[in-house]
Amino acid sequence: MVPHLTTALSGPLLELEQRFLAQSAWIEQWFRASWQEHTPPFYASCDLRNAGFKLAPVDTNLFPGGFNNLNPDFLPLCVQATMVAVEKFCPEACRVLLIPENHDRNLFYWQNVARLALILRHAGLNVRLGSLALATPVTIELPNAQSLLLEPLTRRGNRLELADFSPCAILLNNDLSAGIPPILHDLNEQTLLPPLQAGWAVRRKSRHFAAYDAVAREFADLVGIDPWRINPAFAVCRGLDFRYRHGEEELADAVSRQLAAIREKYREHDISETPYVVVKADAGTYGMGVMTVKDASEVIGLNRRQRNRMSVVKEGLQVSEVIVQEGVHTFETVRDSVAEPVVYMIDRYVVGGFYRIHTAREKDENLNSPGMEFKPLAFETGCNLPDSSENPDAPPNRFYAYGVIGRLACLAAAKELEATDNYEAVTLPYAMRASA
Amino acid sequence: MVPHLTTALSGPLLELEQRFLAQSAWIEQWFRASWQEHTPPFYASCDLRNAGFKLAPVDTNLFPGGFNNLNPDFLPLCVQATMVAVEKFCPEACRVLLIPENHDRNLFYWQNVARLALILRHAGLNVRLGSLALATPVTIELPNAQSLLLEPLTRRGNRLELADFSPCAILLNNDLSAGIPPILHDLNEQTLLPPLQAGWAVRRKSRHFAAYDAVAREFADLVGIDPWRINPAFAVCRGLDFRYRHGEEELADAVSRQLAAIREKYREHDISETPYVVVKADAGTYGMGVMTVKDASEVIGLNRRQRNRMSVVKEGLQVSEVIVQEGVHTFETVRDSVAEPVVYMIDRYVVGGFYRIHTAREKDENLNSPGMEFKPLAFETGCNLPDSSENPDAPPNRFYAYGVIGRLACLAAAKELEATDNYEAVTLPYAMRASA
Repeated sequence: MVPHLTTALSGPLLELEQRFLAQSAWIEQWFRASWQEHTPPFYASCDLRNAGFKLAPVDTNLFPGGFNNLNPDFLPLCVQATMVAVEKFCPEACRVLLIPENHDRNLFYWQNVARLALILRHAGLNVRLGSLALATPVTIELPNAQSLLLEPLTRRGNRLELADFSPCAILLNNDLSAGIPPILHDLNEQTLLPPLQAGWAVRRKSRHFAAYDAVAREFADLVGIDPWRINPAFAVCRGLDFRYRHGEEELADAVSRQLAAIREKYREHDISETPYVVVKADAGTYGMGVMTVKDASEVIGLNRRQRNRMSVVKEGLQVSEVIVQEGVHTFETVRDSVAEPVVYMIDRYVVGGFYRIHTAREKDENLNSPGMEFKPLAFETGCNLPDSSENPDAPPNRFYAYGVIGRLACLAAAKELEATDNYEAVTLPYAMRASA
Repeated sequence: MVPHLTTALSGPLLELEQRFLAQSAWIEQWFRASWQEHTPPFYASCDLRNAGFKLAPVDTNLFPGGFNNLNPDFLPLCVQATMVAVEKFCPEACRVLLIPENHDRNLFYWQNVARLALILRHAGLNVRLGSLALATPVTIELPNAQSLLLEPLTRRGNRLELADFSPCAILLNNDLSAGIPPILHDLNEQTLLPPLQAGWAVRRKSRHFAAYDAVAREFADLVGIDPWRINPAFAVCRGLDFRYRHGEEELADAVSRQLAAIREKYREHDISETPYVVVKADAGTYGMGVMTVKDASEVIGLNRRQRNRMSVVKEGLQVSEVIVQEGVHTFETVRDSVAEPVVYMIDRYVVGGFYRIHTAREKDENLNSPGMEFKPLAFETGCNLPDSSENPDAPPNRFYAYGVIGRLACLAAAKELEATDNYEAVTLPYAMRASA
């Protein structure tokens, strides 16, 4: 089963997919050249929106959860890509410490951790789980009668270890929203993946989408499309305090400018949909601190509940910076439910994906809400099987297009991580506050 | 469906598989280190024999046919591995010329070529087919209503081209049994894969198995097993002429010594099977020039038909050198038919495999006979999913073991190709005669 793409709107997207197909050799060659200059993150997932007239990433996660939602048939692909990544980052590694999120009660998340550990084990690594938040070992029972053992971390000189396990490499599946804990500082003897600046203590959506902006422009030039077709516009708004309504007017102005720009583009491309923007915390994840806005007036005089919802993200961090991102409509549906693709990458390879399907939401709402109230629908086929003998919108070709956009976001993440490599020298309010 | 391994004999193999499983992290680390020092061939397939007490490669093909026999679910895995290989050998490539065998009438072979071309296309390459034996284009119709266009080659200076296609890289699926044609000499501007010395004009089984001998010894030492468990012994016999019965006695002596050595090993390991050897052309393929022998007397006084069968291999080449290889019994069966695993690799990754199943043959006979009279049975799962929570003989674990042995053979091939890199300086009777 593959979500239905509303056909009345699929004309321009078909054109996009057709171009991707016709130029797949150039596209792949361009990616090969790009990956010779930029190192992809160890892993990533990318939330896409498919509006028919526009196909764009709206969020790139460098600590992907949800590996358990991928088609199990893709497991060998994940394992092979992991082997490639390990060969590159730490060829001598044989023991890996996987550090998951703290205090997560979501069993789906732990199934993701179990799947990740399985992938690493299949790739021939000894894997143990270490927790940033535990003083004694804890066993988590999973629905499939399996269990995960989480163990407390120990720092020995420059090394991060478990009581009886000294890893060669450390893989973070913890997005460091709470800041970079001192125990992770200066691990000079071990490979830390992804690097610390990939965590939300340092990372900013605005930096990612600025990098994506440049990547999308170069790519659009290569395949001969308007970069707007694959790029959500955005603006940044700083110095906000939702609790005290500081910066409300500036935010309304930014929203207003964005909406006007989208309206202009819709006119240019003869699109009759209602423009909207998504206001979200510049540093943060998990669908917290996110708001869909169709008119600037909506951000003026938010009620207490709305202000609270916007002012705090994961780990209780205050939101003072937001991005105002062009909303991209979702026109893929499964039995009248909105379906949004998520693409998974390990190293520079797309290893699968799934759709988030949510019955209770509208096409312009954010589906990645707390509690993960969605049904995953795994991609049926791989994202690396473009087939020009089939319809451009046939599932393998649609998935190929998703894989191309996902990889563009991954390339943007690579450039973003390079640019923040010396993050300790940069002003980092979150990181400083969190570790204070 | 997975072939049944005769359980009475599976004890020692279970031990082998158990060791592979328990030490998979060390094994994978060892492979990673090995591939940093040695470059795997672009692709390879390896014929294995599983005797329960012994699991060993008996032939390594550097121009693999049979990609069409792999599980279609493994296609994304093949594509991803091809991307890795292309990134390494010719990152700037976007046009590839695939050169298949000449004059092959076997439609199975052409389905293999079609599958290979598909894999390359999915990896984002423009692929065309060029023939060493055509002066005008020929279209080959395939059973699935597809067709292949074979085009004549053109030499332009240092480049090999088609009339309107100048490839960046050339992939040989032609084993050059007929010698290296002058049109392939000195292609300095294009990447030629695999290198010319991989062809049977230069290649010798004896060199391959000598390299495998060293690889198997090192690996056996790593995992703590007797190398004999994974290594078929062999000897070389030169200066033969089957037509005139020259060298018959020397061959009988070599057979006799091999059989005695096997008998000794069987005694040591308490194995009650009948030892046998396989006599095969040192340079050659396709199951021609192959003979199963249980007693030295069998090679004395061969009748005309037997002598003819041994004296000529593919492309009419005379056999003057043979290897006398320890026979490894086949104890895997599907409904009473003998089943032999073939493992496929692209670059350093196992991308799948299948069983050759032959109802009419005995467990000690060669299944790769002319005309390919076997039924392929694709591996159900990947070869990179070792699972220590399952029985060591569960299919994913048996396939993992096959993948390990296949990769050992692939590593041997890498060393073999390195050693013959300056093949032009070496005495090469076949190559010289064929290009004369």
